[in-house]
Amino acid sequence: MASAEEARFKIALCQLAVTSDKEKNIAHARQAIEDAAGKGARLILLPEIWNSPYSNDSFPVYAEDIDAGGDASPSTAMLSELSRTLKVTIVGGSIPERSGDRLYNTCCVFDTDGKLIAKHRKIHLFDIDIPGKMTFKESKTLTAGETPTIIDTDVGRIGIGICYDIQFQELAAIYASRGAHLLCYPGAFNMTTGPLHWELMQRARFIELANLIVSIILLMHFFLKFRAADFQLYVATCSPARDTGSSYVAWGHSTLVGPFGEVLATTEHEEAIVISEIDYSLIEQRRTYLPFERQRRGDLYQVVDVQRVGSV
Amino acid sequence: MASAEEARFKIALCQLAVTSDKEKNIAHARQAIEDAAGKGARLILLPEIWNSPYSNDSFPVYAEDIDAGGDASPSTAMLSELSRTLKVTIVGGSIPERSGDRLYNTCCVFDTDGKLIAKHRKIHLFDIDIPGKMTFKESKTLTAGETPTIIDTDVGRIGIGICYDIQFQELAAIYASRGAHLLCYPGAFNMTTGPLHWELMQRARFIELANLIVSIILLMHFFLKFRAADFQLYVATCSPARDTGSSYVAWGHSTLVGPFGEVLATTEHEEAIVISEIDYSLIEQRRTYLPFERQRRGDLYQVVDVQRVGSV
Repeated sequence: MASAEEARFKIALCQLAVTSDKEKNIAHARQAIEDAAGKGARLILLPEIWNSPYSNDSFPVYAEDIDAGGDASPSTAMLSELSRTLKVTIVGGSIPERSGDRLYNTCCVFDTDGKLIAKHRKIHLFDIDIPGKMTFKESKTLTAGETPTIIDTDVGRIGIGICYDIQFQELAAIYASRGAHLLCYPGAFNMTTGPLHWELMQRARFIELANLIVSIILLMHFFLKFRAADFQLYVATCSPARDTGSSYVAWGHSTLVGPFGEVLATTEHEEAIVISEIDYSLIEQRRTYLPFERQRRGDLYQVVDVQRVGSV
Repeated sequence: MASAEEARFKIALCQLAVTSDKEKNIAHARQAIEDAAGKGARLILLPEIWNSPYSNDSFPVYAEDIDAGGDASPSTAMLSELSRTLKVTIVGGSIPERSGDRLYNTCCVFDTDGKLIAKHRKIHLFDIDIPGKMTFKESKTLTAGETPTIIDTDVGRIGIGICYDIQFQELAAIYASRGAHLLCYPGAFNMTTGPLHWELMQRARFIELANLIVSIILLMHFFLKFRAADFQLYVATCSPARDTGSSYVAWGHSTLVGPFGEVLATTEHEEAIVISEIDYSLIEQRRTYLPFERQRRGDLYQVVDVQRVGSV
């Protein structure tokens, strides 16, 4: 942090409704970002796949060439423009990205000058096959990313993951070891359509869940708290709003969790802009009181950051 | 597992009341183990420091020389005798151990022949100093253990940790990588005495907690679920019963969690024997449906088991 002031700021989680009309999705995201900035947010987070329906059929159709930019990527052009004009940092959820003959699920981060400062391609693709219950394979159309993404911004050092990336605590460990203050996970945690949806509504508590699919969704949501408490930092997720008419029904519940594992702000499944204050000084307080990092037994175990060829 | 039968069995968590009378504590533990075996338990878990009050003053006084055995260690002699006569596996919570001029917080595991098959010395000592709120330093009297402990028994491959060991997910990762079915964490999660006790009672939900000390206790309890869900195995904790008259007030709530992170059995803070069935076939089911292990990106990160000098 360059100054004490920058350790405290407002974050906005834009839980957007997503349609099959890309232009409409872009205009809608623009409006939400303007609203969030108007409410004082200095960091704005969008959902996973906010410009396209979430399906293997849609990814190739809605994909944009982010590196080419301009007309080849109207979604990121809008994010760049707004981050510059509104002087906000945007963690732009994710969109399907076309790069050569490959498709990725990609999150772009823009600084307050409108510059693209990071591009995270989802590292862990969500491939699941439970016979007779649920099948979804992102790997049918998408390629996995090859690099963890952590970036310095005006609002702290931010580690990026997309949805299923949250399951793998080693990624969070690596970000923590590189000094992250905040982890952002755009995530369209899925609900299969139909009766399971209603079953979930009737079973509010995790511990009572017997249903596999429902438990997967809630696990994802649960991991949010794990990561924050284990590594003593802030973790934010941002989901699309729920649309029960689509083939992929998002769970909603965009949430900010603090370095004690405590939920600071959350929402239900409808469209919403969640605004909450982040105070990075609490990270230091937490780590002073409970010095997990110092108490780790590096002589017995180490999380190795392979690309850095060093231990965390 | 040698046979399908051994994958299903009953576990007992003996949440014992602990007094300052060691002989009484041993007789009381004996009774609880007999009761648990009578109820069909094949694996019996005791609490952390069940033969002594939990304090730095008491540890040297109540410590036993486990390696010398016999009269030098009446607590483990009783555990050995009962595991043999009752044909049960005992994860004997922990007792203060004297070894030369050092003291350890040590868990002994006995097989169904009464043989001491593992001895785990608490690896992560609980040292905490929050000015004006709470100070406790196990390192004042205790020495930390130097080795993770995982052992094959008639009731599966079991990884051992003691209380604060649960905070460090790398230890659980190492046990998971070595094929553990079950992690056992005897733990005397602490409550400071007095008003905080009542505050906790009034604030049932983790997310509403503002108080640091209370949040630490609940975090410990929370980590139980983290470890089970992250590594897709069973995790059991066993606490002493709460005694509000002692200087160290235990939280109770001995709990068994399954490989979905679901609570299978738990109790309040009074003395209790919690009996629950474990079915290791659920571990395989879970891992088939959600193959976290296969989906990990070993090309990007690895948890290294330093003593084995290899990657997990």
